[in-house]
Amino acid sequence: MFRRFAPQITKVIRNMSTEAASAAATAAPPAVNTPKAGSKKSSKKSKKSEQFLLKTPKGTKDWADKDMVIREAIFSSLTSLFKKHGGVTIDTPVFELREILTGKYGEDSKLIYNLEDQGGELTSLRYDLTVPFARFVASNSISSIKRYHIAKVYRRDQPAMTKGRMREFYQCDFDIAGAYDSMVPDAEVLSILCEGMTGLGIKDFKIKLNHRKILDGIFQACGVKEEDVRKISSAVDKLDKSPWEVVKKEMVVEKGQDEAVADRIGEFVKLNGSIREVLELLKKNETLATNESAQAGIADMTTLADYVDAFEISDWIRFDLSLARGLDYYTGLIYECVTSASAPPKNAQELKAKATKDIKDANAEVEDASEFVGVGSIAAGGRYDGLVGMFSNGKSIPCIGISFGVERIFSIIQARAAKQLEKVSASQTDVFVMAFGGGEGWNGFLKERMAITRQLWAAGINTEYLYKSKANIRKQFDGAEKAGAKVAVILGKEEYPEGQLRIKVLSQGDDSDQGELIKVEDLISIVKQKLDAYNEDGIDEVTRMIRGL
Amino acid sequence: MFRRFAPQITKVIRNMSTEAASAAATAAPPAVNTPKAGSKKSSKKSKKSEQFLLKTPKGTKDWADKDMVIREAIFSSLTSLFKKHGGVTIDTPVFELREILTGKYGEDSKLIYNLEDQGGELTSLRYDLTVPFARFVASNSISSIKRYHIAKVYRRDQPAMTKGRMREFYQCDFDIAGAYDSMVPDAEVLSILCEGMTGLGIKDFKIKLNHRKILDGIFQACGVKEEDVRKISSAVDKLDKSPWEVVKKEMVVEKGQDEAVADRIGEFVKLNGSIREVLELLKKNETLATNESAQAGIADMTTLADYVDAFEISDWIRFDLSLARGLDYYTGLIYECVTSASAPPKNAQELKAKATKDIKDANAEVEDASEFVGVGSIAAGGRYDGLVGMFSNGKSIPCIGISFGVERIFSIIQARAAKQLEKVSASQTDVFVMAFGGGEGWNGFLKERMAITRQLWAAGINTEYLYKSKANIRKQFDGAEKAGAKVAVILGKEEYPEGQLRIKVLSQGDDSDQGELIKVEDLISIVKQKLDAYNEDGIDEVTRMIRGL
Repeated sequence: MFRRFAPQITKVIRNMSTEAASAAATAAPPAVNTPKAGSKKSSKKSKKSEQFLLKTPKGTKDWADKDMVIREAIFSSLTSLFKKHGGVTIDTPVFELREILTGKYGEDSKLIYNLEDQGGELTSLRYDLTVPFARFVASNSISSIKRYHIAKVYRRDQPAMTKGRMREFYQCDFDIAGAYDSMVPDAEVLSILCEGMTGLGIKDFKIKLNHRKILDGIFQACGVKEEDVRKISSAVDKLDKSPWEVVKKEMVVEKGQDEAVADRIGEFVKLNGSIREVLELLKKNETLATNESAQAGIADMTTLADYVDAFEISDWIRFDLSLARGLDYYTGLIYECVTSASAPPKNAQELKAKATKDIKDANAEVEDASEFVGVGSIAAGGRYDGLVGMFSNGKSIPCIGISFGVERIFSIIQARAAKQLEKVSASQTDVFVMAFGGGEGWNGFLKERMAITRQLWAAGINTEYLYKSKANIRKQFDGAEKAGAKVAVILGKEEYPEGQLRIKVLSQGDDSDQGELIKVEDLISIVKQKLDAYNEDGIDEVTRMIRGL
Repeated sequence: MFRRFAPQITKVIRNMSTEAASAAATAAPPAVNTPKAGSKKSSKKSKKSEQFLLKTPKGTKDWADKDMVIREAIFSSLTSLFKKHGGVTIDTPVFELREILTGKYGEDSKLIYNLEDQGGELTSLRYDLTVPFARFVASNSISSIKRYHIAKVYRRDQPAMTKGRMREFYQCDFDIAGAYDSMVPDAEVLSILCEGMTGLGIKDFKIKLNHRKILDGIFQACGVKEEDVRKISSAVDKLDKSPWEVVKKEMVVEKGQDEAVADRIGEFVKLNGSIREVLELLKKNETLATNESAQAGIADMTTLADYVDAFEISDWIRFDLSLARGLDYYTGLIYECVTSASAPPKNAQELKAKATKDIKDANAEVEDASEFVGVGSIAAGGRYDGLVGMFSNGKSIPCIGISFGVERIFSIIQARAAKQLEKVSASQTDVFVMAFGGGEGWNGFLKERMAITRQLWAAGINTEYLYKSKANIRKQFDGAEKAGAKVAVILGKEEYPEGQLRIKVLSQGDDSDQGELIKVEDLISIVKQKLDAYNEDGIDEVTRMIRGL
């Protein structure tokens, strides 16, 4: 199923199936697979091999420049939102004792990154922020907390880089732990999800909602044995990517269910609509009427319907019985936020076939599966009432949470804001200090520029100057433009020794303008005044971009 | 030198020497050393073993509550500073291809964390932010950048937890890459260091400064062979922890230098003072007069003396010829910022002896060396003109940077601000929405509280309410206090149906005050007005605490 290609095939094509690729990666022989530049076969260090060495590990990337401006603005928007809901933040280590992660992720456990055993404890990189949170709650005997955590997580998955599916990626999580009245925190988390999206200018989203107790009740009522429920659930979870026929086949052939059982399940999982619409169908269903689990879930959803009305978020929500979510630890409400960018392209199969036609083994791995997949869900979460108990001798703390997939949201905003982004500068420099002079005895006023710059720094003003002892006027204006500075402070050869400076407001077209002559002692107050005037029109460009205005 | 203790010895004591401990860790057999809870010897899961399982890996910790408030405020202070100097931020992966890190850290390379070979590339956790930055500059062919990066780095070192010496810890780095006039960026980085410290209310610091070219020149002039320079430099680097006699012994016995050579070095490395004082001594020294490297360094320092005057930071600086810095990649100016907390306690040896007396092997490892060590340097850096060239076929980009040790700075601020911290709340909740009522037909107004809360959220106001359908008055006030709320919005059983609410400013002693009766439609404007009045006195408590006001 998996084979390694000879080194001369530079573009290694890999199978897009996550399961296959991961199983292959896990099963791969432990032979040392050094980057090509380090290969002993290439004795001379060619330029090409040096370049290859310089890449980041597969599925990771550097973030820089305006991309960072967007991402930081997303973090900032979500942080404000989390604080608005009373959240406090925590920071847990990027790796945990390996046993903490064991048995929490179902089929995805094979995607966990392990650290090498260098003596001492066995540890692994965190797979999400939820399990470390549950470990934190248990180990500190916390009875209630609303916490947010924005940090990187790690999955040895098949990357789809341009769609924001990476091996190292950020999650922005908000979780509510504590025993409260039914569905109250659940409704608030859904509100946070909606506020998060609209605050990021994303309005064409839907929240798919389901309840594990209803889903489990359906499986039981359809004749699935107790021990098969989780694996049937994980088959249903694939319905967003595969048609019912494929999922049914998996249930019958791979997972040993009767065809009649699968067909009965099929009738349920095609149901979706508003919470009240689907509830109506479920409440009159006779198969579920005597199922305790299903009835408990139906009662929860009935309560929830009122609360989402109070929060005015019902329109975003779709109760969808085909939503299952892969992770083992969910026990109640589950949800996923999707947009039009979530689905794979219509011609995904065709694109995949085209990409693999050059090599014989169509099951090989694709380096970057971006072409064949959608961004998937852009936020997701659910209730996990049993997870903390796994770390605290069964003393359960009910929890519910939401995780925003920042990289995927980033992809959406980046595509939307391409034009606005041109006006944004990566640095936030406000003032550029320059010296104009020339002729005999002209030394470039470097120390003088430093001293003036120091005064501006001391006043908290973002200021740069050119790191050259002598610089011509053009180069200094270029530097100011590159820095995105709004105001130039100019030390003239004749004027400065007489205690005077020139202030010139930049990027206003009129380059011939010599600026305003001021006294050195008025520098700070006049610069502040110019900068205030500059920002007078309210919302800055970055905020405008993030909110989609 | 290193031995493993039998499992029954629960408190394993380890040698405080970093080198010894690390060498031991690296040399340890690759036997699986699972956490005790997972040990096959304990078949029943006792409470004790469960608790042990719940810890974070050695040398790491969870950050939460008010500690996070302090740390985020430190990050925020440094981020503003970096932006003030024109910095832009980047984010690189937490792990790099292993070869990127190889050969960059001298004796400390053994402290690098490797990821397990699970098929695919060999990777390691980053040891600092400098090498990934150089790799970033080279791989993107950047000719100049001022970048800051606040992120975690990883070192399998001997932890000293209460002193902020961890295996996972944050660095806050600012680096300037690019070919500029001599010592101009260097002076700015020193200014950033001083501004960073004073901005964090740390005023009793000194910057120890030295120049690799001067140091190398001294070693050459004293008779050290070219190939021995780096290892003699790393011996000198220990002078902040060990007396000259110990370092001299290392040079002569371990590193094979003549005693006369060591003595000549000893005469130089005891010199320190202001830049101009030490320069005066060096300039008239005949041994160095013909040494090219030393003279180049002396010229640099002469230039620097003027620039640090222009930035008004000379008073913080001490030119100290005993400063060597361990890392291989420095090529010019090097510096370390120290405070009174940096040095180990006077009775360190005594404390160490006491801790190790219960076990026979005094060379064993200490779990936490906090008692015996100081916090060390709280910021450090230097010029590294060759590092980028190592990644780009020798195309050099000169660089200089500063790294702030946040955990160590945190320890200092935490100790200083203990009293102020009492007044600070971890959450930033402003408003708490409550319902007052009772008697027949009283339903607790849960949906009504939700609807009012939603209005406040929509207006961007940080708001909480109790997650219970009915809650008594006392519990709601307790909730408001726990959240640190400033204003209560109260829905009265009789008043709310008539379109009225009560607003009550909290924590002002007078609990009998019934608050102000307002119309529902005026809610947002009146709440905003109350909150504005609350913050009227200017600087908030957290800022006050961080700045040491």
